[in-house]
Amino acid sequence: MAKQEDDFKKVISHAKEYGYVFQSSEIYDGLSAVYDYAQNGSELKKNIREYWWKAMVHLNEDIVGIDAAIFMHPTTWKASGHVDAFNDPLIDNKDSKKRYRADVLIEDHVAKIEAKIEKEVAKAAKRFGDAFDKKEFLATNQRVVEYQEKADSILKRMGRSLENEDLADVKSLIEELDIACPMSGSKNWTDVKQFNLMFGTKLGASAESAMDLYLRPETAQGIFVNFLNVQKTGRMKIPFGIAQTGKAFRNEIVARQFIFRMREFEQMEMQFFIRPGSQKEWYEKWKENRLKWHLSLGMGEDNYRFHDHEKLAHYADAAADIEFRFPFGFKELEGIHSRTDFDLSQHEKFSGKKLQYFDPELKENYVPYVVETSIGLDRMFLAVFSHSLQEEELDNNTTRTVLKLPAVLAPTKAAVLPLVKKDGLPDIAHKIIEDLKWDFNVTYDEKDAVGRRYRRQDAAGTPFCITVDHQSLEDQTVTIRHRDTMEQQRVAISELKAIIHKEVDMRTWLQRME
Amino acid sequence: MAKQEDDFKKVISHAKEYGYVFQSSEIYDGLSAVYDYAQNGSELKKNIREYWWKAMVHLNEDIVGIDAAIFMHPTTWKASGHVDAFNDPLIDNKDSKKRYRADVLIEDHVAKIEAKIEKEVAKAAKRFGDAFDKKEFLATNQRVVEYQEKADSILKRMGRSLENEDLADVKSLIEELDIACPMSGSKNWTDVKQFNLMFGTKLGASAESAMDLYLRPETAQGIFVNFLNVQKTGRMKIPFGIAQTGKAFRNEIVARQFIFRMREFEQMEMQFFIRPGSQKEWYEKWKENRLKWHLSLGMGEDNYRFHDHEKLAHYADAAADIEFRFPFGFKELEGIHSRTDFDLSQHEKFSGKKLQYFDPELKENYVPYVVETSIGLDRMFLAVFSHSLQEEELDNNTTRTVLKLPAVLAPTKAAVLPLVKKDGLPDIAHKIIEDLKWDFNVTYDEKDAVGRRYRRQDAAGTPFCITVDHQSLEDQTVTIRHRDTMEQQRVAISELKAIIHKEVDMRTWLQRME
Repeated sequence: MAKQEDDFKKVISHAKEYGYVFQSSEIYDGLSAVYDYAQNGSELKKNIREYWWKAMVHLNEDIVGIDAAIFMHPTTWKASGHVDAFNDPLIDNKDSKKRYRADVLIEDHVAKIEAKIEKEVAKAAKRFGDAFDKKEFLATNQRVVEYQEKADSILKRMGRSLENEDLADVKSLIEELDIACPMSGSKNWTDVKQFNLMFGTKLGASAESAMDLYLRPETAQGIFVNFLNVQKTGRMKIPFGIAQTGKAFRNEIVARQFIFRMREFEQMEMQFFIRPGSQKEWYEKWKENRLKWHLSLGMGEDNYRFHDHEKLAHYADAAADIEFRFPFGFKELEGIHSRTDFDLSQHEKFSGKKLQYFDPELKENYVPYVVETSIGLDRMFLAVFSHSLQEEELDNNTTRTVLKLPAVLAPTKAAVLPLVKKDGLPDIAHKIIEDLKWDFNVTYDEKDAVGRRYRRQDAAGTPFCITVDHQSLEDQTVTIRHRDTMEQQRVAISELKAIIHKEVDMRTWLQRME
Repeated sequence: MAKQEDDFKKVISHAKEYGYVFQSSEIYDGLSAVYDYAQNGSELKKNIREYWWKAMVHLNEDIVGIDAAIFMHPTTWKASGHVDAFNDPLIDNKDSKKRYRADVLIEDHVAKIEAKIEKEVAKAAKRFGDAFDKKEFLATNQRVVEYQEKADSILKRMGRSLENEDLADVKSLIEELDIACPMSGSKNWTDVKQFNLMFGTKLGASAESAMDLYLRPETAQGIFVNFLNVQKTGRMKIPFGIAQTGKAFRNEIVARQFIFRMREFEQMEMQFFIRPGSQKEWYEKWKENRLKWHLSLGMGEDNYRFHDHEKLAHYADAAADIEFRFPFGFKELEGIHSRTDFDLSQHEKFSGKKLQYFDPELKENYVPYVVETSIGLDRMFLAVFSHSLQEEELDNNTTRTVLKLPAVLAPTKAAVLPLVKKDGLPDIAHKIIEDLKWDFNVTYDEKDAVGRRYRRQDAAGTPFCITVDHQSLEDQTVTIRHRDTMEQQRVAISELKAIIHKEVDMRTWLQRME
């Protein structure tokens, strides 16, 4: 656990030091759970977005994109269920005046019980040495079995109470477990109340005509309300999809883990409209397709797993997460949801407009079913960034810090370095940039010894360093150094473009999905 | 005027019919001054954004990008002056309960006076025929001169009162001019009050700890507050720039003219940090550079003009607009502003942090000066779209509607059309798409006669149609038709990619800036 925390701290400080992610409004001491993408981070974020858009929209003849506004008519959120059901259960401590998510207080309590189990396991492992069998131990050791039963029963009761909106029982549970305020140690709690996670604002100037608006908590509804307009003007035939990327906002009470859970974040969602009855087939297809997309980046099959939901949201008849191994363990990276006709039917009901499709083969009208894929762009950023940050032991007993970003996503594709700041080498370097910059984001660096510049570009994630030396003056060749292998080749300047294209083009990477 | 209005209506309906722009939340009868970009519009918007980003960030070694959050610490907007001074003067009619912008009521009144002048001019032109000299007439006709003087004096007095925050005099002016509520005809007005244009919301759950936030009314401040972090981690040397694209929000009372003035809109801004004293030089350079960027799109030099501001905002020592000829006349498309050290100095003052740069050549610290370029992405979209929509008289006395988008910006670069839906032609068409789709956004269309498909793609703005016919089966050639000239060439399938690249690549277009 300490190792994990330490690794995660390194990720966060590297992200700042190398211009990837800054705390928002840092000069004003920051804004909780809001972050800004810096000069390298903004490029990485853009590249992830483009990699998704290419795969989802341009490579699929039957998917188109849209870009709907963050502001939507407020009835949208009545129809979607967000006004009534998008809540967190909150509880205040009367002494410290601090507010908590009731379910998180209880989960933290359970985590302590689980820590006790781990401690028993560690003790036993030490005592039994090679003879230790963890599975057997967990099943037979009386104390451990009791801990586990207690943890399970707490979570079960909490789940049931939240599902039944029995908030009084959630409070009773907190009292029975003797949970104290982490700040004050006080057990003097208020009742548990539901708190809506949508940010509100007001549109229009006059008090009486102002309209209560919400900042969208998900991008999906922008696709549902535009479904018929896109289908008709785009002459789309079912099955077809609509994709979109954009900001969404949730007033999270417990927002933590850096950019993993933010109050302002970006989603990349695709809703695929299908015939009722075909949802199982499409759900399986999209699960498979999306996992392939992730695997195409070469970050290791072992770092992904599916987690099928047992408890389903009110709109879904099947749902699964693709989980990724973050520095703090396996967590949700993307969701694939079979949403039935829930959303379109709700919008029919609330708008009074028909949202049906005439199927020319079946010769009948129906409200399509929907399978959606939904991924957080910021989470994807964190997955790629944290996985790529590595410390390598080198042969000469030194270590190097290298950010092994998939080359297709790297912010800067190449750094062009004159060996020395004279003899016309900078001129050649700039000339190389003048040609490469049309195809790639490239950078120039002339400061410090070349070895130090290599390490700087390694840490910044740049896949190629191109070094101009005195031989370049004579024969128009340069060395090109590969970030991951540190191998250097001597190549003609005229070959550079093709070499880089081969390693960074989306085609090279996305064809691995096939 | 009627012609202009008519043209503008055509633009709006074409934008809907061909999947460019939909009214937001249309099924709920829309949300005023908010729009969604549809399947073609989202691609055009993305392409404009990329064209700007390439020109500003990737082609300039001394400019980097960032992507700051919409939420910022509220003190940001105290420092920038938006909390105190980002207001519109509003007035309510007591009978109709309708609210108006006081300055717009007065401007509309002046517009009526100017309409009278136009009427006199038209009458005189009819009377005098060829002998009519408009300039002379305007100078000497007593009635017209009086109208003009009256209009000028009203605008002058309004400008002075607003500048001095003398809202009582603005009200007096409305009363003296006998302006009535356009809804009710009543002249029963309230006092004029300032109304802040920022949208507010609350961060955090508990009533006592909630923080009042604003949705950013401009992206620029996200750059100022990050200036020092970017400069340090990016090892930037002055002069250098930071660029960003992103959403901004203004609670406009009078939002109109389609996507020209929206409550939610997207900006593309660049702040260029320079030595104090060099602002004139950089201001002129950026004016020139930005105009070149616009001209590179080939939409006609006559459609642009500079408008230098006489009255300057509190933060500026020089400012100019690049105006474009929209369907409703010349209007601001982009602004170039010499902002001095106003913003950074204000943030120093409000944050208590030094925001200075150590200049290694001058060996001194200073707060940099800033020249900014600021363009509305949605306005740019409207400029490109409205300019490109044309009706052409053809030789055979028919007309065609064609959307002559610059090919580099077109949402779909090519449509691949099998002449008939059989004999294996669709297979060849799909095979062509399989290869082209890695480089371009392409589409397949097999419905209707091929002539009709050509017209459909013309109206949608697709630069190329590629037609697969029976000869294609034999010799692997197709016809490629150019949208603007309607010329067709017979070419080998293997040549298609190079032909399209040449016309649509950014390099082809942006090199015109040099």
